[in-house]
Amino acid sequence: MSLIYPPLQAPKRLLFGPGPSMVAPRVYQAMTQNVVGHLDPFFFQVADEIRSLLGYAYSTSNQFNLAISGTGSSGMEAAVANFTEPGMKFALLTNGFFGDRLGEMARRQGGEVVRLAKPWGEPYDPQEGREFILRERPQVVAFVQAETSTGMFNQAKPICEAAHEVDALTIADCVTSLGGMPVLVDENGIDIAYSCTQKGLGCPPGLAPMTVSPRALDRLKARKTPVQSWYLDLQLLDTFYTGHKYHHTASATLFYALREGLAMVAEEGRENRWQRHQRNHQAFVAGIEAMGLGMHVQNPAGRLWTLNTPRVPEGVDDAKVRAWLLEKRGIEIAGGFGPLAGKVFRIGLMGHGSTEDNVALILEALADALKA
Amino acid sequence: MSLIYPPLQAPKRLLFGPGPSMVAPRVYQAMTQNVVGHLDPFFFQVADEIRSLLGYAYSTSNQFNLAISGTGSSGMEAAVANFTEPGMKFALLTNGFFGDRLGEMARRQGGEVVRLAKPWGEPYDPQEGREFILRERPQVVAFVQAETSTGMFNQAKPICEAAHEVDALTIADCVTSLGGMPVLVDENGIDIAYSCTQKGLGCPPGLAPMTVSPRALDRLKARKTPVQSWYLDLQLLDTFYTGHKYHHTASATLFYALREGLAMVAEEGRENRWQRHQRNHQAFVAGIEAMGLGMHVQNPAGRLWTLNTPRVPEGVDDAKVRAWLLEKRGIEIAGGFGPLAGKVFRIGLMGHGSTEDNVALILEALADALKA
Repeated sequence: MSLIYPPLQAPKRLLFGPGPSMVAPRVYQAMTQNVVGHLDPFFFQVADEIRSLLGYAYSTSNQFNLAISGTGSSGMEAAVANFTEPGMKFALLTNGFFGDRLGEMARRQGGEVVRLAKPWGEPYDPQEGREFILRERPQVVAFVQAETSTGMFNQAKPICEAAHEVDALTIADCVTSLGGMPVLVDENGIDIAYSCTQKGLGCPPGLAPMTVSPRALDRLKARKTPVQSWYLDLQLLDTFYTGHKYHHTASATLFYALREGLAMVAEEGRENRWQRHQRNHQAFVAGIEAMGLGMHVQNPAGRLWTLNTPRVPEGVDDAKVRAWLLEKRGIEIAGGFGPLAGKVFRIGLMGHGSTEDNVALILEALADALKA
Repeated sequence: MSLIYPPLQAPKRLLFGPGPSMVAPRVYQAMTQNVVGHLDPFFFQVADEIRSLLGYAYSTSNQFNLAISGTGSSGMEAAVANFTEPGMKFALLTNGFFGDRLGEMARRQGGEVVRLAKPWGEPYDPQEGREFILRERPQVVAFVQAETSTGMFNQAKPICEAAHEVDALTIADCVTSLGGMPVLVDENGIDIAYSCTQKGLGCPPGLAPMTVSPRALDRLKARKTPVQSWYLDLQLLDTFYTGHKYHHTASATLFYALREGLAMVAEEGRENRWQRHQRNHQAFVAGIEAMGLGMHVQNPAGRLWTLNTPRVPEGVDDAKVRAWLLEKRGIEIAGGFGPLAGKVFRIGLMGHGSTEDNVALILEALADALKA
């Protein structure tokens, strides 16, 4: 090829969508650090720090914390693939896109999926959830703690308690909660949690932080069939951390970024960080309501602090608003999809991006866009 | 947590192992560029460039070129998972660790694996390979073009020709050839090729570049069962490139890096790049032989230009040599494993790291280490 490719110049975006969120300068800085080999003593030191910092971020005493070499969706698949065997009953509580995706993955793994489904963004009643689980007596119960498609926070504890009554494992999607809201793995009784790096943790996408409880590990060791995915086989992956054995070539650059993102959570303090997200979320909602807009999630206690879903006002074309924001202000927000297409905006204030200044900035920009 | 985590400071390593290889400054620079969303027009522009540049690097007119969001091993799993259905006959030609891993993955996908196996680092005879394939009449034939565990280059063409005679698809592991040696997808008749970013392309690990032939795509569309992996489902992944549809949150940072790595291949010219690797490989071998060491792969035409496997001299403890190099010189090389444990060094000169100066540097350091 005789062509010359000038070095890539990315535009500066203000990332207020559902993720990636704004990356902290410290994280960018880490990614300029020298790549080392995946079996380098320094890499193992970073991996150990990640293991321990993940326990802190997830509020768990689990030892089995690791980063899957893939995006948050690979974390979902790792959770489903490792804990579902063909013919196993997999109970799903879903009220959004990512809940439905859990079911799709479980079916592909041969699971017998039973569902308690609510319209996107409507809560399931704890009593109804409990009855569903006790009636179905599944081996696995999966749900989405922070539903990115709707802005809804689902309470984990009642689900996990009912699941444990029938000796089922619990899988929680924490993609949009980790680092921005209390996931509380141990307190809630979540057996398997997965998340991503590009939301509450303020890193680029590329890894899926997971944590697995001792009882889930016991279940894993007792599997009758091999995990269909070699790449996501948690027992193989663990040998990298515990035995320093080669499994795949984990990315030093992404591990550096995650280590910095998690270090920033620890330095800020997880509770302080949650409060910062809550405060900025509440300020955003107050501003939205002052503009005469409503929130899609009716109950304030059911709203994510990380991702806001104001309703698109009657007669407004949300795609035009989003295009205006991107073109005129370099701001990314997202629209709804599926049953919420055209009906909600999805506006993220998370990780490094959850600041008072950004609340003011996005509210003003949105007001301008709606007038434009 | 009251702890303070000082920003991570990675040591400077000279990466002469089997990958990651040295990352080019231009690639590091790209990773400091602003992250944009995975549905940003700029991201799609980068993805389109990657699609086209991958065709060039792979020497193919295939349109279906993409980067899997995972390491090279996820590319292997994507190749196996998409083109293997339960009960399907999967023929494997193996003479090393990664060949064996292909078989492990195929078994997990329910494939009926039949093998033609040679000792690690010994070639299979083309005629024997052909007879094996014609006798077994498999639906898929898989092999490793560049075997990272042994330093062996396996000729693709005779395998692919025999496979096509029985209408089988061909899967080639090009993890250690892409960007450093002629993969020649079209000329060799490879239907599905996968690779990594951290070897011949000089990027950090994290993505698996793949290419898929039109006939393989037809086969994919005719599958009777869904691909067990949702995350690696190629038809879903393709909708991101062709329909700009959300599948998962691909990493802007890793895509930037890959775009730069591939742009550097195009600017240098793939043939020039292969010649550079060949020249430096030959200089390295000449130096090794001048030191009185031998190469594990006997036939010079069967040696990788990217990864050299000199034999460990009698009475030398390879682990001590490697530790000395890392501690005294900051140099990473690798040892052998499996049947080659303690018997070979694995010394990579690839991508940005394949230079005359580095040949001299590593030969001198190795000589010093052997004397130490």
